[in-house]
Amino acid sequence: MSRVLRVGVIGLGFFGSRHASIYADHPAADLIAVCDADPARAAAVARDTGARGFGDFRALLALPDLDAVSICMPDRLHEDAAVAAAEAGKTILLEKPLAHDGAAARRIVAAVEKNGARLMVGHILRFDPRYVQTFHAAAPERLGRPIHLRAKRNGVRSTAKRLGASSSILFYMGVHDVDAMQWIARSLIGRVYAQKAELLGTGNEDALYAVVNFENGAIGSIDYSWAWPDGLMNGFRSSLEIVGTRSAAYLDCTDQGFFTVEDGGTSGGDTHLWPEINGRIVGDLADELDHFVKASLSGRPYLQDHREALDAVPVLDALAQSARTGLPVDVMR
Amino acid sequence: MSRVLRVGVIGLGFFGSRHASIYADHPAADLIAVCDADPARAAAVARDTGARGFGDFRALLALPDLDAVSICMPDRLHEDAAVAAAEAGKTILLEKPLAHDGAAARRIVAAVEKNGARLMVGHILRFDPRYVQTFHAAAPERLGRPIHLRAKRNGVRSTAKRLGASSSILFYMGVHDVDAMQWIARSLIGRVYAQKAELLGTGNEDALYAVVNFENGAIGSIDYSWAWPDGLMNGFRSSLEIVGTRSAAYLDCTDQGFFTVEDGGTSGGDTHLWPEINGRIVGDLADELDHFVKASLSGRPYLQDHREALDAVPVLDALAQSARTGLPVDVMR
Amino acid sequence: MSRVLRVGVIGLGFFGSRHASIYADHPAADLIAVCDADPARAAAVARDTGARGFGDFRALLALPDLDAVSICMPDRLHEDAAVAAAEAGKTILLEKPLAHDGAAARRIVAAVEKNGARLMVGHILRFDPRYVQTFHAAAPERLGRPIHLRAKRNGVRSTAKRLGASSSILFYMGVHDVDAMQWIARSLIGRVYAQKAELLGTGNEDALYAVVNFENGAIGSIDYSWAWPDGLMNGFRSSLEIVGTRSAAYLDCTDQGFFTVEDGGTSGGDTHLWPEINGRIVGDLADELDHFVKASLSGRPYLQDHREALDAVPVLDALAQSARTGLPVDVMR
Amino acid sequence: MSRVLRVGVIGLGFFGSRHASIYADHPAADLIAVCDADPARAAAVARDTGARGFGDFRALLALPDLDAVSICMPDRLHEDAAVAAAEAGKTILLEKPLAHDGAAARRIVAAVEKNGARLMVGHILRFDPRYVQTFHAAAPERLGRPIHLRAKRNGVRSTAKRLGASSSILFYMGVHDVDAMQWIARSLIGRVYAQKAELLGTGNEDALYAVVNFENGAIGSIDYSWAWPDGLMNGFRSSLEIVGTRSAAYLDCTDQGFFTVEDGGTSGGDTHLWPEINGRIVGDLADELDHFVKASLSGRPYLQDHREALDAVPVLDALAQSARTGLPVDVMR
Repeated sequence: MSRVLRVGVIGLGFFGSRHASIYADHPAADLIAVCDADPARAAAVARDTGARGFGDFRALLALPDLDAVSICMPDRLHEDAAVAAAEAGKTILLEKPLAHDGAAARRIVAAVEKNGARLMVGHILRFDPRYVQTFHAAAPERLGRPIHLRAKRNGVRSTAKRLGASSSILFYMGVHDVDAMQWIARSLIGRVYAQKAELLGTGNEDALYAVVNFENGAIGSIDYSWAWPDGLMNGFRSSLEIVGTRSAAYLDCTDQGFFTVEDGGTSGGDTHLWPEINGRIVGDLADELDHFVKASLSGRPYLQDHREALDAVPVLDALAQSARTGLPVDVMR
Repeated sequence: MSRVLRVGVIGLGFFGSRHASIYADHPAADLIAVCDADPARAAAVARDTGARGFGDFRALLALPDLDAVSICMPDRLHEDAAVAAAEAGKTILLEKPLAHDGAAARRIVAAVEKNGARLMVGHILRFDPRYVQTFHAAAPERLGRPIHLRAKRNGVRSTAKRLGASSSILFYMGVHDVDAMQWIARSLIGRVYAQKAELLGTGNEDALYAVVNFENGAIGSIDYSWAWPDGLMNGFRSSLEIVGTRSAAYLDCTDQGFFTVEDGGTSGGDTHLWPEINGRIVGDLADELDHFVKASLSGRPYLQDHREALDAVPVLDALAQSARTGLPVDVMR
Repeated sequence: MSRVLRVGVIGLGFFGSRHASIYADHPAADLIAVCDADPARAAAVARDTGARGFGDFRALLALPDLDAVSICMPDRLHEDAAVAAAEAGKTILLEKPLAHDGAAARRIVAAVEKNGARLMVGHILRFDPRYVQTFHAAAPERLGRPIHLRAKRNGVRSTAKRLGASSSILFYMGVHDVDAMQWIARSLIGRVYAQKAELLGTGNEDALYAVVNFENGAIGSIDYSWAWPDGLMNGFRSSLEIVGTRSAAYLDCTDQGFFTVEDGGTSGGDTHLWPEINGRIVGDLADELDHFVKASLSGRPYLQDHREALDAVPVLDALAQSARTGLPVDVMR
Repeated sequence: MSRVLRVGVIGLGFFGSRHASIYADHPAADLIAVCDADPARAAAVARDTGARGFGDFRALLALPDLDAVSICMPDRLHEDAAVAAAEAGKTILLEKPLAHDGAAARRIVAAVEKNGARLMVGHILRFDPRYVQTFHAAAPERLGRPIHLRAKRNGVRSTAKRLGASSSILFYMGVHDVDAMQWIARSLIGRVYAQKAELLGTGNEDALYAVVNFENGAIGSIDYSWAWPDGLMNGFRSSLEIVGTRSAAYLDCTDQGFFTVEDGGTSGGDTHLWPEINGRIVGDLADELDHFVKASLSGRPYLQDHREALDAVPVLDALAQSARTGLPVDVMR
């Protein structure tokens, strides 16, 4: 591979446009192509970044000098694009979730491995200092054995309404915390029980509460909701805590240390995920792409192996099944 | 009844000594008797307050001019004292939990009703402004229908070690939140699922996580722990939130707005529950006793009927059973 | 004096109506009279509480069986009412500020002392557990010598607009913190320097920042504002901190542990000052009146002597003078 | 200049070692030399990074292929090294403060300009998302005219003891906030008044409180202390707020969203400044160096011109003078 990673971005929505912007600013990346189903959008981003614009991702993938792609499409389109990229032998950064269900996720991984491609899944929490510090604090020599873990990810109802039946609380939001809990606990979830509520009529679950068991004996609690009124301060509430036999650690992302006040109310602001400051995007997403570029160029392993990324998927499937049946479910791996 | 409530306190530990102190300061109460199994302790409190000291609660209950008693003994001694007080026709303020199990609780209530006595259970959260404001905010005309509720009560491991097998996380701490959740949701819990962890060897559960269903369709999450290291800021973390179809409300008791800093660390302090300031006890406990005195004198109903206080008990029993069996359990009422 | 304090309330605005309500609920108080310049308002409160309604405070003060009065009128009317009450020999609870300027304050005190009346000034922070805990934590044996103190009291601009030139940031809000700082530091302020800003055109200062020197060598910082946009979370921000040679303490009143969320935003709620819960007013104001009633009946001294209450006034005068001249000013006592 | 910036680090203490580590990880930087007065330290960092080690910064500056240097020495050594680097024509990243006093700062700038070198001062807050978001929120079209600004930077006494008379609260900590306030207010400070406390005997001021006036009419309050007991949660408290005629913004850096709990207490952790996560340093410092590398290579201006960096120095001098004399002081520029 060259000293500079020649990269393309497929899907130019909220995340894809940020990927494009970050690559364009990265000294070891060369953003050579962008693609969106909306040709005007592709053209606009192409113009801003100097990349070539495409309307069809297969044309983009056919570029012979393209090393790598970010796939930032809606969940249900991940499989086609990722399999095609794998078959084209490209290095892939696949925005979470890996796929919209477990079977699709496994097909993507199979295609990657068959074609000798490389795959990194965009589990951004693995680059968030709050989560990584908690991971470090939960090392066995510091924490002892994990006793209990709790994760929360709550958002506002307008998100659920906007996404409607095209997504699900588990795959859209839940994959973050299932991945984080297993990573931080150094153990897989083996059994789950979940209940959901559906009163708002958004075409989606309002909330899902679960109790889970880890293989190492710890118990876990999961608290997902996108039922909050839209005036929720900061727009979301997410946190995680782990208590072990020797020490404990917790994080809370709700307050990011910055607020604005107008006559209509007080609002928080992003200072961690992908804040645009001084004209450029910094924070977790930029660090994630920096890692992707460097590890892709050097051939060193990604922070998270793609097989480990797959570990969250059967837990999500089991949570969905438990919420449907009202019974505890063993996770099938 | 007289214009002043002549009251006695049975059990002079942490809570009983505070009850005695609050009554002694109350203009409509006359603390005439105190009782503790430790005669020195009874004598000391008697000396401080001007009340008569007793070593045996039956002798105290035999005082003819005694109107009412606070019972502040360890959980497993509640039944004997409460039944005796009921049979003596006294008005009773019974510190939570009502009893150490459901059968004992029902025997107490039966004795109260058979003897025409009055009973108020010391559910202090019903006098905590944070919980009561949340209760008011969750009125149907403000909140709409409840969708999901979450309650947390976490403490440090030295409490579990100290109490050992003489108590349980559910009856010692859990009764607070089960009562509060049913009160604030305006609905009973009908089905529960719980898992517990026991790694610390305290003779007690370390933690219990549960998912519950309310009769009105809302789902609930309960998060109990006394496994935190003893250095936990403020010594506890408790919170509650409820999201409804129209609005939402939440409370967090962890930070009470006051801290001290020494070379060894930063510590919080109580400004809500029973702070002793300017030489007297104020806050939730004082308001609870003020209500008890006034309603007892006036004959008006207590904020919480004793039958409603009983509603928490079968939920605790079901949680214990689910944690033991690993299966969802329907609450038996 | 009787076993019950027969009390009247003069001025039935925001504070006066709360005083009336609290007295009506107090077992050792008998609310016998209320007074407001608006006869309809006086009649309404009289009807609700069973007290007699008056339009003229002199008629109220002429009641022979009246023991005590709460004076809750606008700042500039304090002097007339307080002097008249003193001349009538009544026991007085005077809402803060003592008066609208130093000369009036001294005339009130002179009248009280000449007539052998008793006077308590409504410095509510002396009953707020957060401030009192800080006061206790700042005891010399715990804190050592005070090094620096900072106090903040910030509110929204609609308050400044509403009050206009009838009040001032110093006398309306500032008296709280000057009293609290001198009380907690166990020392008087001897020298001040202040700057003010006046850009909003409310007819009032927008903000006043000051640096002060205590007689014991500590330095102080004061931060007053009512220039915040009306959407400020909770409507205010107030805090105080003190660092000493041995330890330190701080309090922050902004977050009171309770929030509601609607589509339009997140709002805090009062859980400390005068929350109305379960149909009655509890918290700092209720504790302040409870103390007033008990100490008035028993003849014991008030927590704060009226001469100590006077100590804040020359500091406010000096702050105003410094802000006007731009020079440091020595406090004249 | 080459496509890669060949860089050296002078001074390998807390900051210098982090600079070295960040450059070693940066794809557009080549760390070719490091220098420390302690040869063992220089050798150790050289071994870890592959750079050459030096004991004398003049030898390092004599390297013909060296493009740029980070100067991370103690305050009083800044001048010699920076002037030498300027005379060698190197591009300079100078850790704050520019110098230990105003005269030295001006000599450094003169040397830079005379030799046609480039200079960026390490004002890290200009890369902190919380401060930059506040800067963006304070744009005139959003904030209106600034009315009042308050900045706080408080730390623990062990820092003051360790640095002793070799540093000062104003130059060590204060330069951050004076620079930030002038930057965010879009206006210079023209007049100051300050008082200091010195009770702890650390060889340094314990605290300094100031009131300042901006040229645009806003007032400011500054609150510096390193007198807190060492057990202060997180080890520091820093915040900034600005209220304007249209809106307001505030930030608080004290809570960074991550905590660990052990039996001895609860501790925060760095998630913003220079957290080392997943084996590399991210956050503000890494972003600052990334900007330095990119702007140095491209020839584009630095975010902050070196002449603007100089604007903080006369304010610090005026604050020191006011604290010494007890009188307001006009800032001399």
